[in-house]
Amino acid sequence: MKFGGTSVADVERITNAARRVADEVRDGNEVAVVVSAMAGTTNQLVEWTREISALHDAREYDAVVASGEQVTAGLMALALQNMGISARSWLGWQLPVRTDSVHGSARILGIDTEELIRRFGEAQVAVVAGFQGLGPDGRVTTLGRGGTDTTAVAVAAALNADRCDIYTDVDGVYTTDPRIVTAARKIDKITYEEMLEMASQGAKVLQTRSVEVAMNHHVRVQVRSSFSDVPGTLVVDEDEIVEQAVVSGITYKSDEAKITLMAVADRPGVAAAVFGPLADGNINVDMIVQSASPDGARTDMTFTVPRGDLPAAEEILSKQKDDIGFQQMIADGDVVKVSVIGVGMRSHAGVAQRMFKALADRGINIHAISTSEIKVSVLIAAEYTELAVRTLHSAYGLDAA
Amino acid sequence: MKFGGTSVADVERITNAARRVADEVRDGNEVAVVVSAMAGTTNQLVEWTREISALHDAREYDAVVASGEQVTAGLMALALQNMGISARSWLGWQLPVRTDSVHGSARILGIDTEELIRRFGEAQVAVVAGFQGLGPDGRVTTLGRGGTDTTAVAVAAALNADRCDIYTDVDGVYTTDPRIVTAARKIDKITYEEMLEMASQGAKVLQTRSVEVAMNHHVRVQVRSSFSDVPGTLVVDEDEIVEQAVVSGITYKSDEAKITLMAVADRPGVAAAVFGPLADGNINVDMIVQSASPDGARTDMTFTVPRGDLPAAEEILSKQKDDIGFQQMIADGDVVKVSVIGVGMRSHAGVAQRMFKALADRGINIHAISTSEIKVSVLIAAEYTELAVRTLHSAYGLDAA
Repeated sequence: MKFGGTSVADVERITNAARRVADEVRDGNEVAVVVSAMAGTTNQLVEWTREISALHDAREYDAVVASGEQVTAGLMALALQNMGISARSWLGWQLPVRTDSVHGSARILGIDTEELIRRFGEAQVAVVAGFQGLGPDGRVTTLGRGGTDTTAVAVAAALNADRCDIYTDVDGVYTTDPRIVTAARKIDKITYEEMLEMASQGAKVLQTRSVEVAMNHHVRVQVRSSFSDVPGTLVVDEDEIVEQAVVSGITYKSDEAKITLMAVADRPGVAAAVFGPLADGNINVDMIVQSASPDGARTDMTFTVPRGDLPAAEEILSKQKDDIGFQQMIADGDVVKVSVIGVGMRSHAGVAQRMFKALADRGINIHAISTSEIKVSVLIAAEYTELAVRTLHSAYGLDAA
Repeated sequence: MKFGGTSVADVERITNAARRVADEVRDGNEVAVVVSAMAGTTNQLVEWTREISALHDAREYDAVVASGEQVTAGLMALALQNMGISARSWLGWQLPVRTDSVHGSARILGIDTEELIRRFGEAQVAVVAGFQGLGPDGRVTTLGRGGTDTTAVAVAAALNADRCDIYTDVDGVYTTDPRIVTAARKIDKITYEEMLEMASQGAKVLQTRSVEVAMNHHVRVQVRSSFSDVPGTLVVDEDEIVEQAVVSGITYKSDEAKITLMAVADRPGVAAAVFGPLADGNINVDMIVQSASPDGARTDMTFTVPRGDLPAAEEILSKQKDDIGFQQMIADGDVVKVSVIGVGMRSHAGVAQRMFKALADRGINIHAISTSEIKVSVLIAAEYTELAVRTLHSAYGLDAA
């Protein structure tokens, strides 16, 4: 059972979360609880490290920010004890949750659960501080933002748990953002692949890496609300889902920016000249479109970068202008990437075509397209976001009856 | 160098404290820094543990409250690095600071400093999280309130340091509370014994246990301000002080309460009948006065208990009324204990007499007296506190010229 920041935001909410744990224990289940820091705490800690030193040592950053989960782990254990449930907190270094040495965004290498399992036999609940681990240097590591989801799934995998329940402030994964589409439906079951695409294409309900870990270890994950008793969304292997929808969900991602290089010399090596320097600058390029040039001499290149990296990308490309040989650069931060996602696409033709037609019918211009086996993404002007999402949600028959 | 909560209350103050450390390093000194939690943090953490569970598990309490020092240790290391000083944080479990298993008020058993000393050779500053250690059970322990002073002195002892500088919000130890006596003077040097009495008799500048550790290991301690460059007060062995004042300081302690049992049967075993049940109730009795009875049959007994324990003490004694055989119990929470302290008393007669006379001249009635080799304490009505302290400060020639 994993409880996120809003679910442990204060003493009252921690107590509520503990009640849910106590219910599971009284139902005869052996439970490990993984907790985030109280909502807002991690932001405050990160802010302090930034204020004190712009170029901070990631090992000290980790020591500071890991403290938030330490507090909630202890408080959760106390809340459980107060309800007559045997419980103890486990910090990352105590289990330990062994990670690699990449401070600030470490990966979990393994979790020793022998002692947890022994204590399950004594009816003791394990309360594990999320987000943190022990590096090979004997120091505290953290897993990067949202890392508590990953801790939870990794603990579930190590324990060979029946299920990993992620308690959060929404009651499941929706076909799209319910703030935009009131007819959005909660999905009962979704595959790991779809969830992975949903998470990486803008759905904020689960951290991408945690879904990867769940998929690799076949951990059944349930996303559900801390504040209601409604069943949530199960994230499972494809074979657990009898009838697949062609499209499971529509996502949008606003933190993109578009760069167009006009009249680039169309010669071998030009792509390397553009994208090499961006990669050296640690800027991830996502969608790429290269329009065929009528005379074969010049071409327009359009691609997207994270919006926060747009100024850096512009600076890098300006410096390379002569080397690349473009005439003009046009940057546009006012774009959004809308994606339709569904494993059913593999066996159904015409999914992309339906998307393009539905958007065209609304007069929405597509700037770029990218596809994967179970996803079609388009880049459009940001002002059309809501219209596009609503249109596609209807077009694929996802609206609630 | 130890920095207390007000000295690391925010990012700016941590940076200021780091500047002081950097100065010492640039002067060629090898430095270990010990830090408290940001002012207010520990209170908040303690409050949460109390809200969540009245009868809390001290091991979980420790895991929660130790997080405050973890944050400042990391931030201090970052601040130093930002000034070009090599530094790393050490949490209690990392050094480790080995303690006994008394969670919530553990005692330090030993500190492994080999690695610190090795890194001094690489010009690295050690930033140690105060107040915390590692228990024999492999879990986080804390040393009790003010424990960071103890960590600092213990680290200094383990390192065989030239000095342990305690940076706080006052610029030293004063002859008495300057808020009461404007003529109070900062003491340049004071002996461990005097400091110990000052601390236990109400001076809040150093934690009692830290002075004991300093005395046992002959650690020279300097109490000084984080906010000025004025030299502070040195706490040292008696032989370092050439000319001893007869009286070094005047303290007062308000958290006392007086209980008088009237007309107690004066028979063998009556003291045990009174103080046994109080001891069983974990109530510390301090000053005790038993007035001689004219007929040898009945006596009045007066003693003090911590004010917070007064209701419990009254309840215990009421239950024992028949067993003890007293006629009436009078409780008074409106009392204060005033003490004069000085190692010079050992070789000077008449110190107590001067105290009694000075107070009598002012019409201040003494309810009880207790003495030690270097201290005379009297219990008086609380309303006379300021008058008594000022009178004694003058009477022993302590007023600043």
